Amino acid sequence: MPTRQKIRYSDCDPQGIVFNANYPRYWDDALTDWYEESGLGGPELGGSGVDILTARIEIDFKSAATLGDELETSIEVERWGNTSMTIAMATRRLSDDVVCAEGREVIVYVDPETFRPVPVPDFAKEALSGNLEGSG
Amino acid sequence: MPTRQKIRYSDCDPQGIVFNANYPRYWDDALTDWYEESGLGGPELGGSGVDILTARIEIDFKSAATLGDELETSIEVERWGNTSMTIAMATRRLSDDVVCAEGREVIVYVDPETFRPVPVPDFAKEALSGNLEGSG
Amino acid sequence: MPTRQKIRYSDCDPQGIVFNANYPRYWDDALTDWYEESGLGGPELGGSGVDILTARIEIDFKSAATLGDELETSIEVERWGNTSMTIAMATRRLSDDVVCAEGREVIVYVDPETFRPVPVPDFAKEALSGNLEGSG
Amino acid sequence: MPTRQKIRYSDCDPQGIVFNANYPRYWDDALTDWYEESGLGGPELGGSGVDILTARIEIDFKSAATLGDELETSIEVERWGNTSMTIAMATRRLSDDVVCAEGREVIVYVDPETFRPVPVPDFAKEALSGNLEGSG
Repeated sequence: MPTRQKIRYSDCDPQGIVFNANYPRYWDDALTDWYEESGLGGPELGGSGVDILTARIEIDFKSAATLGDELETSIEVERWGNTSMTIAMATRRLSDDVVCAEGREVIVYVDPETFRPVPVPDFAKEALSGNLEGSG
Repeated sequence: MPTRQKIRYSDCDPQGIVFNANYPRYWDDALTDWYEESGLGGPELGGSGVDILTARIEIDFKSAATLGDELETSIEVERWGNTSMTIAMATRRLSDDVVCAEGREVIVYVDPETFRPVPVPDFAKEALSGNLEGSG
Repeated sequence: MPTRQKIRYSDCDPQGIVFNANYPRYWDDALTDWYEESGLGGPELGGSGVDILTARIEIDFKSAATLGDELETSIEVERWGNTSMTIAMATRRLSDDVVCAEGREVIVYVDPETFRPVPVPDFAKEALSGNLEGSG
Repeated sequence: MPTRQKIRYSDCDPQGIVFNANYPRYWDDALTDWYEESGLGGPELGGSGVDILTARIEIDFKSAATLGDELETSIEVERWGNTSMTIAMATRRLSDDVVCAEGREVIVYVDPETFRPVPVPDFAKEALSGNLEGSG
């Protein structure tokens, strides 16, 4: 299920709209929920000895969200790399389905001790491919 | 030296003033700086095997701070308990010396493993008593 | 309905527990929801020309919440003043009903232009008294 | 002068490193300081009737920053568009000059009422071009 975020007073800035740095936070929440729903919850991907790091974030701000809006973030795998995956993120306002922010993140699989990249575990690839949001 | 905080766009809410929950964050920053300046920096009070937890916060909001204001937080020990200390906090605006928020925090000394209270270490009492801010 | 808060990665600090300054944010969210459910939603109490400010916060930290915990904050009016109300706040962990943080806030009713205190409007007193959470 | 940011307890997450969503906040602070130093401070670019919005953010995370690190963010204009500018951002750790995060932002000049793009004002172009950080 896509992650929902009710926009709060503390999310908004003096322009009255959601401060831009809140979106990567919403996306991190959505990523966590997506892993949990895929059975990969908790630290180190459910005790597998592999962890993940965010290596890159791209965000295009399309429409301003404001106090009281409810937003929903969906995630879709765009590409599997050897040690990483690229995921497409889109955050829509529930009331009118308008996209407020969209973009992508590159997530790297790492050794939790050394933070060095490791090959994407097969179980992660399978779990997340079986749980694509918005796939047709 | 008291800790300074320049008020940023992301600190302010749609009323255009500093969101109330930012003050305990400024106070935590001031607490960290105060420990560092007292030679008790880093995790576990400089490797002493004792950690601290915030047990209680009281804040009175006196005057609203806004974008561009520079604030300064001072700390003074009010009372030493057996396993805790009570510290008085005051955050003033530099431009006019008006108090924006004041109050107190109760800080408990704990075992870093069990989080159970331990007696205030003598070295902490001495270090912090020798570094009171605002003392006459 | 009491406001729920799922504890996120960004809510937790290097000790692995919820950073203390997040509680006043959760309480502000709960306050907003409570006003909305009482029919006083939106800026200036539903267009009534009266606004509210938080004048004082007291928090006692009782038990540490951590990643994945779901918390629930309830509000109860303790006392009505002439221009203010004192509300008791309690945040419990859903899984074991343990109180993580409790305390109170003093909320002042103000003129939205001058921020000067005004008498508590009767409609606010009625609406909020009819919607006490946790009342017996 | 590049904007400095001391890494605080509340900036770090349970992995003990700066949470990724803090970087766009540091960058927003740096952007504000840059405008101020260029004589374009305050809301609506110093009362000029033009405002700015962040339209796009790209961040590459290169090295993890941690508690106590001091970071410095520099800004350089990469490209002037008709109604926007693209700025290159780099955040370095002061102690070893290692880049922790780098990327770019697209900033759009807008009408503060309608939020519609307007041509980049000449005075902004001149002020910011005369104040490039890190230019050779």
